Amino acid sequence: MSKTRFLTGITTTGTPHLGNYVGAIRPAIRASVDDSTESFFFLADYHALIKCTEPERVHESTLQIAATWLACGLDPEKVVFYRQSDVPEIPELAWLLTCMTAKGLMNRAHAYKAAVDDNLANQEDADFGVNMGLFSYPILMAADILMFNAHKVPVGRDQIQHVEMARDIAGRFNHHYGERFVLPEATVDDNVAVLQGLDGRKMSKSYGNTIPLFLPQKKLQKHINKIKTNLLEPGEPKDPDTSTVFQIWQAFATPDQVNEMRQSFADGIAWGEAKKQLFALIDAELAEGRDRYEQLLAKPAEVEAVLQAGAEKARASSKQFITQLRAAVGIRPLG
Amino acid sequence: MSKTRFLTGITTTGTPHLGNYVGAIRPAIRASVDDSTESFFFLADYHALIKCTEPERVHESTLQIAATWLACGLDPEKVVFYRQSDVPEIPELAWLLTCMTAKGLMNRAHAYKAAVDDNLANQEDADFGVNMGLFSYPILMAADILMFNAHKVPVGRDQIQHVEMARDIAGRFNHHYGERFVLPEATVDDNVAVLQGLDGRKMSKSYGNTIPLFLPQKKLQKHINKIKTNLLEPGEPKDPDTSTVFQIWQAFATPDQVNEMRQSFADGIAWGEAKKQLFALIDAELAEGRDRYEQLLAKPAEVEAVLQAGAEKARASSKQFITQLRAAVGIRPLG
Repeated sequence: MSKTRFLTGITTTGTPHLGNYVGAIRPAIRASVDDSTESFFFLADYHALIKCTEPERVHESTLQIAATWLACGLDPEKVVFYRQSDVPEIPELAWLLTCMTAKGLMNRAHAYKAAVDDNLANQEDADFGVNMGLFSYPILMAADILMFNAHKVPVGRDQIQHVEMARDIAGRFNHHYGERFVLPEATVDDNVAVLQGLDGRKMSKSYGNTIPLFLPQKKLQKHINKIKTNLLEPGEPKDPDTSTVFQIWQAFATPDQVNEMRQSFADGIAWGEAKKQLFALIDAELAEGRDRYEQLLAKPAEVEAVLQAGAEKARASSKQFITQLRAAVGIRPLG
Repeated sequence: MSKTRFLTGITTTGTPHLGNYVGAIRPAIRASVDDSTESFFFLADYHALIKCTEPERVHESTLQIAATWLACGLDPEKVVFYRQSDVPEIPELAWLLTCMTAKGLMNRAHAYKAAVDDNLANQEDADFGVNMGLFSYPILMAADILMFNAHKVPVGRDQIQHVEMARDIAGRFNHHYGERFVLPEATVDDNVAVLQGLDGRKMSKSYGNTIPLFLPQKKLQKHINKIKTNLLEPGEPKDPDTSTVFQIWQAFATPDQVNEMRQSFADGIAWGEAKKQLFALIDAELAEGRDRYEQLLAKPAEVEAVLQAGAEKARASSKQFITQLRAAVGIRPLG
């Protein structure tokens, strides 16, 4: 029986933080070792260009994110791990799909509609500041998914619509040109923790409240000490369920450790002590990865070699598939 | 001094007719022999997909159009003659440019606005039946032009706006990422004849009034005999300036021959005789090309070989240039 193909893209514009680790990296790597699946992981650098016109940031982030996934245990022998821009079949497929995409479908994309709503609220032209990358981004994402005929695309709730658009576009292509594409499905794992940031809101680059994943020990400790708490003194019982310290603890602890900390809160553990234990817990899980991460950052050419090998694996199927798709639309050698 | 680069694309959805020959093919080939220029001619098969979902038509048309240009004397040693879809750097560049294109710019494209106006007139949704290929077509056209840093793009009046959009997009890219692109200019040749069709309107596939370029002699004669004339008898003077027969004559005749035919009209030449002479004139200009055309159609692999050699020439520059452009936006090897 053929394997179920999973596909995950990571946009290369930032430095991974604990929220990315808990919410995406760790569960995806765990899932990738399942032998009934075939996993595709790619660095979405074309997507990065939509919002980022700083070349050095795109470049640095590519290295940081690739090194992070490898340091966290992604096995490039077992999965297909590549950089989107190393697979020229993807933008080519994006054009074939562009011709199969109703403009009305793009008009309904949440991200685009949110930009329009903002503009109208500010009495601007509806499309003020909107570039065509933002508007047609779901087509490129469809090409990412359909290029490898992925069955499942693990996403957050905000991305479900884009996977549905990929289904829609694939269906239209199949209708015109014969059954070429698997119809992909979004999968949302509600058990995955959404981590809180330093200020108690969702940890997110846009809130500036993140704890970067692979900080040196001392800096990690400093960041953890900055997590917002209330003014309860040592000895006073504390409510774990409204505490960011406890929420992050839960994301790293075993069930037994969770129970123990819950008891410590009831017993009035000092915030300083709770944070000390939280640091120790996180540091224990990350220490090994951090060493590997630092080694990889120091040897970018090794990371590049891994990505090149991954691109070769990816292109072994994409080159063959695009030839079939080109023939389907009428592009094939004469004679 | 470096040469002025001209770029011309031909969409692969139809069979070339006399109007294409007089209005585009013949002047372009004549211009391409000028030693101060470097000419790029490409078969725009990606563009064909916007309107055509018949694979066989795209494929056949590619052969017919390639064979036509070669039969008409295009020298693939002297120019760069290639199929758009053989240059994967073009769709890649299209994505880089997509991220540099304001959506508002696309909203203003004539072809898109015409579709919206039609829809609104028919009380349909504004974007009814509009696909993203139609909407973002000017971006792909910008990629076609900018990929080879063409200085001049010979176009009809209806295409001037698209070249201006390419300038606009190039300017924005240059602004963000440094001077990478020449700003292309549209050139419109008002001396080029717009040929009338069988019914006296502009010769156009969409009016169904065309004379295909390389018809067998007998069929060419039949088509010419179908050109609409008035009911004036032989011996009655005829007005050349309202006559389609005379208008087509002008497009093929020397100045002396034009004057002679003008005199014949004044002298009351019979329509049958005028058409006979018109057939002889056109046939004399096309006979040699028609033979070559038929030979080429019978050997599609030879045409393919010419296109492959052209793609190699095109890619010698596009591969190098895309590497520079990728680096400019932040996509380059790690380490």
